[in-house]
Amino acid sequence: MRQPIFEIVAIGNELLIGKTLDTNSHWLAIQISKLGGVLGRITTVRDRHDEIANAIRNALSRHPDFLLTLGGLGPTHDDITLSSISKSLKRRLVLNRDALAFLRMRYLARFGPSVKLTPPRVKMARFPEGAVSLPNPVGTAPAPRLTVRGTTIVALPGVPKEMRAIFRRSVVPMIEKFGGTQHFYDRSLILLGIPESSLSPIIDQVMRKHKRVYIKSHARGIEKSGAARIELHFRTGGTSPKQQKAQLGHAVAMIKRKLRGKATVRDLHGG
Amino acid sequence: MRQPIFEIVAIGNELLIGKTLDTNSHWLAIQISKLGGVLGRITTVRDRHDEIANAIRNALSRHPDFLLTLGGLGPTHDDITLSSISKSLKRRLVLNRDALAFLRMRYLARFGPSVKLTPPRVKMARFPEGAVSLPNPVGTAPAPRLTVRGTTIVALPGVPKEMRAIFRRSVVPMIEKFGGTQHFYDRSLILLGIPESSLSPIIDQVMRKHKRVYIKSHARGIEKSGAARIELHFRTGGTSPKQQKAQLGHAVAMIKRKLRGKATVRDLHGG
Repeated sequence: MRQPIFEIVAIGNELLIGKTLDTNSHWLAIQISKLGGVLGRITTVRDRHDEIANAIRNALSRHPDFLLTLGGLGPTHDDITLSSISKSLKRRLVLNRDALAFLRMRYLARFGPSVKLTPPRVKMARFPEGAVSLPNPVGTAPAPRLTVRGTTIVALPGVPKEMRAIFRRSVVPMIEKFGGTQHFYDRSLILLGIPESSLSPIIDQVMRKHKRVYIKSHARGIEKSGAARIELHFRTGGTSPKQQKAQLGHAVAMIKRKLRGKATVRDLHGG
Repeated sequence: MRQPIFEIVAIGNELLIGKTLDTNSHWLAIQISKLGGVLGRITTVRDRHDEIANAIRNALSRHPDFLLTLGGLGPTHDDITLSSISKSLKRRLVLNRDALAFLRMRYLARFGPSVKLTPPRVKMARFPEGAVSLPNPVGTAPAPRLTVRGTTIVALPGVPKEMRAIFRRSVVPMIEKFGGTQHFYDRSLILLGIPESSLSPIIDQVMRKHKRVYIKSHARGIEKSGAARIELHFRTGGTSPKQQKAQLGHAVAMIKRKLRGKATVRDLHGG
């Protein structure tokens, strides 16, 4: 059992002109982490064939276990994720029968028997050769899944509700099958009165002693009293809940000991 | 006058485990767009030398005018942006006298004359060779700026208040000097009762006719009545406010004309 490695390629001009805050990638980051995966990189690109294809090729060159693309699966002129994937893989776009059947069903249910599968609609079922169609429990666009040299690519829609539903229905089981359950524990301390620069060697000592605990400090402004406020975030992960909890406890206790007389420590627990 | 091209490399494990939502990149995206620049890509990576250096090298290979890095300038063990930049550029890290003087001043003001410039603090003033030091109006970490084959690299801290202050003080004037002011106008319509797939060919027609207007549709769920709700976002930019406003007005009028009888249109104005 090892931790599956993920990358995300988030697609859309709206992300790069600041119209939309990318809460999709953030949500995925949380889920992946909870499920014991590691998100290695997020690449955010515009709605352009060459830029999307380049980002996908780059991601594949690092051989992640999963590559999730976000956005660009709809019927409009700038929904070009499928053709960009096929460009980057040098695979033809072919009509996927399952995806087409799914689309027909969705449009019939929504618009009745007079609905037509116009070319922009059929486009949504033209997948890179070799892809299978994942169901979209709440929307119209089917999501393709394909495997390329050990990397499973899943193209997710940008509409948050649809993205989440497909991820829960189809991606979560793939991750669980991949790994076995990992258990992650977080804990945060708020420190007052010690500058990050004095904290740094102490963190180093604790991380050298507790190698499975990752500690990161975050500057959180200055108190009214003038004291620096720092959040110290601890995280550990592994297959044994008991061991992980114990490790985390030891690391927190060690840092509290070392900070005695140097900083005020407020324990936030949980996280 | 042309639009300066930007890339962002956002650095930090907290962004990839879902602990922190990357509002910094989003804020920068908005500012860059307002100032007439184009943000071409955001790459989000973990606190690892090789991954940061790889992201920087990749970004530089696309020759943007500006490359902004975000985060990792502090004194702690995982603040490794400066050494990663120097690795990616194959330039030595050298002590920057201005940065050191700035740090000394900041620490003196905050902690008094007994403060020591410990190695983790001095690290913050070790810049890739050739970099100059930009002032940090509200924090401790000085920000290096250097130019590599036509790309200006600025390393910004991850603390939002400090990042914004340095951007306003030092980056905005560089952009203004670069370009001359561009004027951008946005407008949004809410459409009810037309599916995106029927809208797509209409958008194509309007964009072919009004080439400087960029139109993008965003699915915004389903009304209680069962009608699909779509946001149609128009954006145009250029040097003449009068021309841009007129173009935007023409494009909106054309699409309203074409949607007559096909959809309910709600005009949100502004944006």
